[in-house]
Amino acid sequence: MSPRDTLTVEIPSRWVGPLRISGNAIDDEVEVPLATYESPLWPSVGRGARVSRMIEGGIRATLLDARMARSSLFVAPDAAGAFAADQVLHEREEELREAVAGTSRFARLIDVHTEVVGNLLFVRYALTTGDASGHNMVTHAAEALQALILSWDLGLEYGSISGNYCTDKKPSAVNGDLGRGRRVVADILIPHDVLEKTLRTDAKRMVDLVVRKNLVGGTIAGSLRSANAHYANMLLAIYLATGQDAANIVEGSQGITYAEEREEGLYFSCSLPHLIVGTVGNGKHLAHVDEALERLGCRAEREPGANANRLAAIIAATVLCGELSLLAAQTNQGELMRAHRSMERGRGSAAQRPAGTPGEEAQS
Amino acid sequence: MSPRDTLTVEIPSRWVGPLRISGNAIDDEVEVPLATYESPLWPSVGRGARVSRMIEGGIRATLLDARMARSSLFVAPDAAGAFAADQVLHEREEELREAVAGTSRFARLIDVHTEVVGNLLFVRYALTTGDASGHNMVTHAAEALQALILSWDLGLEYGSISGNYCTDKKPSAVNGDLGRGRRVVADILIPHDVLEKTLRTDAKRMVDLVVRKNLVGGTIAGSLRSANAHYANMLLAIYLATGQDAANIVEGSQGITYAEEREEGLYFSCSLPHLIVGTVGNGKHLAHVDEALERLGCRAEREPGANANRLAAIIAATVLCGELSLLAAQTNQGELMRAHRSMERGRGSAAQRPAGTPGEEAQS
Amino acid sequence: MSPRDTLTVEIPSRWVGPLRISGNAIDDEVEVPLATYESPLWPSVGRGARVSRMIEGGIRATLLDARMARSSLFVAPDAAGAFAADQVLHEREEELREAVAGTSRFARLIDVHTEVVGNLLFVRYALTTGDASGHNMVTHAAEALQALILSWDLGLEYGSISGNYCTDKKPSAVNGDLGRGRRVVADILIPHDVLEKTLRTDAKRMVDLVVRKNLVGGTIAGSLRSANAHYANMLLAIYLATGQDAANIVEGSQGITYAEEREEGLYFSCSLPHLIVGTVGNGKHLAHVDEALERLGCRAEREPGANANRLAAIIAATVLCGELSLLAAQTNQGELMRAHRSMERGRGSAAQRPAGTPGEEAQS
Amino acid sequence: MSPRDTLTVEIPSRWVGPLRISGNAIDDEVEVPLATYESPLWPSVGRGARVSRMIEGGIRATLLDARMARSSLFVAPDAAGAFAADQVLHEREEELREAVAGTSRFARLIDVHTEVVGNLLFVRYALTTGDASGHNMVTHAAEALQALILSWDLGLEYGSISGNYCTDKKPSAVNGDLGRGRRVVADILIPHDVLEKTLRTDAKRMVDLVVRKNLVGGTIAGSLRSANAHYANMLLAIYLATGQDAANIVEGSQGITYAEEREEGLYFSCSLPHLIVGTVGNGKHLAHVDEALERLGCRAEREPGANANRLAAIIAATVLCGELSLLAAQTNQGELMRAHRSMERGRGSAAQRPAGTPGEEAQS
Repeated sequence: MSPRDTLTVEIPSRWVGPLRISGNAIDDEVEVPLATYESPLWPSVGRGARVSRMIEGGIRATLLDARMARSSLFVAPDAAGAFAADQVLHEREEELREAVAGTSRFARLIDVHTEVVGNLLFVRYALTTGDASGHNMVTHAAEALQALILSWDLGLEYGSISGNYCTDKKPSAVNGDLGRGRRVVADILIPHDVLEKTLRTDAKRMVDLVVRKNLVGGTIAGSLRSANAHYANMLLAIYLATGQDAANIVEGSQGITYAEEREEGLYFSCSLPHLIVGTVGNGKHLAHVDEALERLGCRAEREPGANANRLAAIIAATVLCGELSLLAAQTNQGELMRAHRSMERGRGSAAQRPAGTPGEEAQS
Repeated sequence: MSPRDTLTVEIPSRWVGPLRISGNAIDDEVEVPLATYESPLWPSVGRGARVSRMIEGGIRATLLDARMARSSLFVAPDAAGAFAADQVLHEREEELREAVAGTSRFARLIDVHTEVVGNLLFVRYALTTGDASGHNMVTHAAEALQALILSWDLGLEYGSISGNYCTDKKPSAVNGDLGRGRRVVADILIPHDVLEKTLRTDAKRMVDLVVRKNLVGGTIAGSLRSANAHYANMLLAIYLATGQDAANIVEGSQGITYAEEREEGLYFSCSLPHLIVGTVGNGKHLAHVDEALERLGCRAEREPGANANRLAAIIAATVLCGELSLLAAQTNQGELMRAHRSMERGRGSAAQRPAGTPGEEAQS
Repeated sequence: MSPRDTLTVEIPSRWVGPLRISGNAIDDEVEVPLATYESPLWPSVGRGARVSRMIEGGIRATLLDARMARSSLFVAPDAAGAFAADQVLHEREEELREAVAGTSRFARLIDVHTEVVGNLLFVRYALTTGDASGHNMVTHAAEALQALILSWDLGLEYGSISGNYCTDKKPSAVNGDLGRGRRVVADILIPHDVLEKTLRTDAKRMVDLVVRKNLVGGTIAGSLRSANAHYANMLLAIYLATGQDAANIVEGSQGITYAEEREEGLYFSCSLPHLIVGTVGNGKHLAHVDEALERLGCRAEREPGANANRLAAIIAATVLCGELSLLAAQTNQGELMRAHRSMERGRGSAAQRPAGTPGEEAQS
Repeated sequence: MSPRDTLTVEIPSRWVGPLRISGNAIDDEVEVPLATYESPLWPSVGRGARVSRMIEGGIRATLLDARMARSSLFVAPDAAGAFAADQVLHEREEELREAVAGTSRFARLIDVHTEVVGNLLFVRYALTTGDASGHNMVTHAAEALQALILSWDLGLEYGSISGNYCTDKKPSAVNGDLGRGRRVVADILIPHDVLEKTLRTDAKRMVDLVVRKNLVGGTIAGSLRSANAHYANMLLAIYLATGQDAANIVEGSQGITYAEEREEGLYFSCSLPHLIVGTVGNGKHLAHVDEALERLGCRAEREPGANANRLAAIIAATVLCGELSLLAAQTNQGELMRAHRSMERGRGSAAQRPAGTPGEEAQS
């Protein structure tokens, strides 16, 4: 391997914010790092962050669940055999729990979900994995569980360590229904004057757009369990900057933006049902990642999982900032491209542009 | 903005291969750059590349289509009004074509697809965009088209420049049915002895796994228009290394792995119906990107689109290498984690490991 | 076969309405026949019909498209072979058109859509089929086309006369994107006082419910290209009464209810992108079916397709009536079950109940 | 209401079989009633039944689960409020269980599944409902539960008695992941000579067709959690004949046909994850329904649910017969239409045709 074969790819990155975030996993003002080739994303998230700072409590992030899942595939002679084995699995769940606990200090089995298709038995294990996203932990656990189950002589044969009912890095419904990663909702109530001055829109236009574009447009596009404008953009940028396995933006891209017009202003929310995130593990040892996590306050001494919960809340709030800003721009004919062109001209100096110039990225 | 706010994120990267690829967009041996925090991906793709070099013609990549799409949303008073406007749009399609041609040297309108939902009119424009992925080109075009259509006084109001029926960076069915990006299939016929020696598996086990895991497992996971193990991993790594907007791995992750057992060996294919890729535009001016595209042979003097077609073919072949290698490993109980653990121990020196040690990444 | 083996199943049926309907396929007042074991459906649709008669023009039904589709499957040696054949198909489309015209007086080929997956070539033919729903017509045509294409020696083998990319009686996205059956939208603008007096609700509550239940609830349920409360109920009842192949309610069940609160009242719409319907063909020769079609005005001398268009418009309006009435009931806590229980007590005499007692069916 | 307004719709019906069925809910030979306008369905199912009688044990039906679900929608001020209420719901689940038990002798709450989207709280209740399909039972229970929960003053407001996360009569993923109705798999192992003589095909061609058409074709069609040829046809016919709410074929149409080529023959299976079926309740009091259920052996004195389980097993076996026969016909070019045309000519006398003439219906 010649020296030219080992190198690093440098992605432009910038800290944006701070965002004001409160909730059951964080109560703080934090700047967020966004690594992206699409520089208009910076001022876009920045505008949302500005809104968050104008409001008591800022963006509220509610963390609802945390788990990682892996499904293994077993092959029985027929459906009766698969079902018989399935029943034994549930009867002996305690043994499965012990086997998982033996593979890691942090891994704990919290759910075993099965599905029989013909003679195929899919077994989906869900684990808590502390501050790790848990990809490797759950695969190790699945390996141990599969070996254990096969040793029980239930008439099963090895099918695959992963049966795609997990599901990793593919769009799915199962992750929404059964959970995988952090389930988190970010929401905010934006007064009418902030909407007008900072976002140049109003509550009715925002709600109309959320319904028509995200929900109806998403429906005809066939966007499975998903209705948003561009979660993937924010996720990619913050995933790269914090050492996440960024291929998990595939699942992350599935989420629902929901808004209501109220007397006090606009209620605006981003629900991310399966946000994969970790503060330890692969990629987290790199210097810039370590630094980023430190600066985000995700390196503190906390109970296992709390740092990752905090990071999940921060990421959800970041998604909300970018989603809010892009949608606001799209309520106005022509604004998106005007901002984009101004950004293109001033590439590299977005931060110097006058406040109120969103520079939305054009995509989505 | 303090200096610490502008920086670059460094993603570990390695050139892997070479891959032997032939087809209607390329006939060459090329190494491919993979930027990733998940280093086991390198030997995994490398093993697939080794297979490609053992076979006459290697991986064949067939490019079937190229286009970029954006949908705009118009609001009519009712469905009758939306439909009347819809009909005018198709009658005056020539004017739409001219308007698009006026926005760029490369943009050409090739399809206008509409859908009416109640009083909402979604208009999906498809363009050829030369060697650019075309995100900006199509948004510029959509802006011009929307202004033009609104000027026709058809009783329409502005809804949104993007109506999510495009669809960008969200899982969808529409991109598969109507196209967006490059449509490309990579396939290969692998003799039985290569399967056995290099991939340590056989044709029957591979076909069984493809059907049970990708197709059946994908079906119960709810993987819309998708059946594969981990396209997203390879896409992310090569997207980052070649300056693509990597959030497009969301669409890219939707694709179908299909295999057949034949007398001569295993027929194995990866179909990517909407692979977003460009060799010019955002992110392509960075030094390491420019170098990577040059080394991939995607900076040659060719007709517009041909460099991007070549890159699409290379990417599809890379996806096939990683998909093939992971699936082969998963046919054997325990192989995935053994390889992964060996890789973990030897992190950073994967290339020095003996040939035949796949070091598959554990995910998916 | 003993006599007891051949019999008829008697489904309770009732004519409901009349509905006031206008649009590009009908301008009339018609009663509609509903055959169902779920008798609360009658007063439910009846309440919607009453609303339609209180409004100038009543329910507007806009017919946007009509076609029937069948996909055949061909097997090539590889993707390059499949793509080469695909190109020939499009070059020789004129010959395909002639072949179709030769199979029926009414069948006309209007679209050939292909998709290549690995070495598999799916060819989806779309035909106009006059007043027939076209199931048999399109299968005859597909048979002729497949034989013709195989005779061209393109290296293809027979895969299947139907490749499931049609798609018949399965939920799908392709039927929405490419069309199958009638595409029709029914909509209505309901003044505030009618909402209050006849439907006991208001515009804001209706819009909130449509968004929260149909669009958001539908999204988390994974309702592909679909967002409604219970289209399937109305479709089944009128399909059975008019001799349709009622298994096509599967596709019919996919549709979108969309509503807007306006100064003048509630805009309410039901979009049915692929409503399969015919006025001639299988099942239409039975006496009660013939009578029903006659009474619906669908036996008149009209150009081919116009009777089926009229029937499609009537069915869409019927769907709107039932959807409107159920949703209105669901805006009020407890109303649905109160009405249902009253209906249960008075089963068989629903028509005698005082006006304003909806008797909604409980499902959905 | 004039006399002509109340009538019955007569659907042609025939008893087909007998089918040989064994498993955990039945061990018997039964004929099945099929009411349909599509008469080719009779010989099609009949051919499958013939196969079942040639094999020891016939079709095996495995019943895996039984439940009915309804989701209610509550509206909180924000996500934090929705989540707080969600937690209380789970803490007080015992009270919920009691409330359900108070609404019916048979209803028992077995699962409460919640999902938060923004400030919206969807609560999905799952109940066992004895021999009833449970539509009304679960709606009554949901009404009681919703009133109870609202009385707890958790800051929630009434959203809807049904929030579409149930899901009734719409395609969905949630019913597959969480269950609704009976989960049942029918499978059979068919010796090579039976395949050849009775079905005129072989194991390899059948497996190829199942993979290419149902799985791959279904995938590109966007058939959510579904891969079959025509379950809806068989379901409609037997639902109508047994007094089921036939609109539930929408959910029933989602299921997976999976096959394997084995040394002993063809393993062929039909998995129906959410088959809605009941032997008491709406529609079951009609004379012909009562007679049909009696003849099917579903009126016996058994523990609650066992008669409905038996019916579910019979229906799944019927689905298998029709699916097997149609797919076998589609492995042979031209067979489907030949049979269909012969059937058309002999309409009304299918039973007199020589054995071995399948007369497959042409659809799907």
